[in-house]
Amino acid sequence: MKMYGNWRSAAAFRVRIALNLKGIAYEETFLDLDAGEQLRPDFLAINPQGAVPALFDGDGPPLTQSLAILDYLEDIHPEPALLPAEPRARARARSLAQVVACDTHPLYVPRVRNRLMEAHAIPREEMLGFVRHWFGRGLATLETRLSTEAGTGRYAQGDAISHADLCLVSLWVGTGIFGVETAAYPTVRRIAEDCLSQEAFARAHPLRQPGAPA
Amino acid sequence: MKMYGNWRSAAAFRVRIALNLKGIAYEETFLDLDAGEQLRPDFLAINPQGAVPALFDGDGPPLTQSLAILDYLEDIHPEPALLPAEPRARARARSLAQVVACDTHPLYVPRVRNRLMEAHAIPREEMLGFVRHWFGRGLATLETRLSTEAGTGRYAQGDAISHADLCLVSLWVGTGIFGVETAAYPTVRRIAEDCLSQEAFARAHPLRQPGAPA
Repeated sequence: MKMYGNWRSAAAFRVRIALNLKGIAYEETFLDLDAGEQLRPDFLAINPQGAVPALFDGDGPPLTQSLAILDYLEDIHPEPALLPAEPRARARARSLAQVVACDTHPLYVPRVRNRLMEAHAIPREEMLGFVRHWFGRGLATLETRLSTEAGTGRYAQGDAISHADLCLVSLWVGTGIFGVETAAYPTVRRIAEDCLSQEAFARAHPLRQPGAPA
Repeated sequence: MKMYGNWRSAAAFRVRIALNLKGIAYEETFLDLDAGEQLRPDFLAINPQGAVPALFDGDGPPLTQSLAILDYLEDIHPEPALLPAEPRARARARSLAQVVACDTHPLYVPRVRNRLMEAHAIPREEMLGFVRHWFGRGLATLETRLSTEAGTGRYAQGDAISHADLCLVSLWVGTGIFGVETAAYPTVRRIAEDCLSQEAFARAHPLRQPGAPA
């Protein structure tokens, strides 16, 4: 497969982890989001939203949106499964994933950070305060749920890696990039560190991709 | 089933439509989000995120996050299907749904609007400008994709209603609530109006729920 991504993108990170776990070979083209490469006409022809990741499986049209790509990979390459089979457990894994992918990550993507600074004259440091607030809300929701709900096991949902862990780890890595306090989230930390100690996650890590700071 | 929702919530609206289409009986308890009922201890015990919808299917733990709930309903009540069977079509329906549910809706929920006004001193009218900007970006992405991609049919994905339409309609209805210009999105309008003319959608409409303005 062929993917368009970026070293820092939490969404591309999730997809890289799934590809690694499933043993699917891929090549990634890294766009420079700070330079606006995602808004060039040739990329907008691939994804009119101007966002990564975009994944090509053969000649088909591009696949976009990280959660949709994760589900596509489940459909075409079901082993190892990254969602539980039982409907309630499956729904819980998806819900935890969406706390990150729907309610947290979209609030700190480059287009939102830039909009706050450029259209609303919010200084950079205050913009970072906005970003850290939503990181905190997402992490606090995960921590409360993971430390109180019966479904939690070695991983976010039971004892097998699921989409919930891919999303959790993609958020956790961002805490370093954006300087977010993490002391209040020991369960999130435990799961993130367990995952990141594994090759499929480590190899997908943002700081190991081309373009990342040394 | 029993659901906690709110008349205005785009996420609760999507779930109501799916329940209606599948013929699943439900009762909805309407929280007053403006009065902060979603942050009361009794509701935080149901969903620590303090967000609607939360759905109970029997005595089980609550199901949260609208897209996860939609997938759960597919799993336990597959007919009529609200996702295509073919993996690429399925991925496209999910991707279109997520343009709304991940990249647009989370930017205009009450907690974000309040945060901009209260923590960043953005006046109400300017906050509405922020909201309208992201509505415009989401609608423009949908319009470009729906008017150019081969997968579009009578509905967003082919000729059967899918999660993409549920999300599209939930965004479309918000354009009225937030005063968003819609002239540039004729394909989105065509699909939204087709859906809203159908009983399962019309009955779920925000303005037909308790608490909505007359």
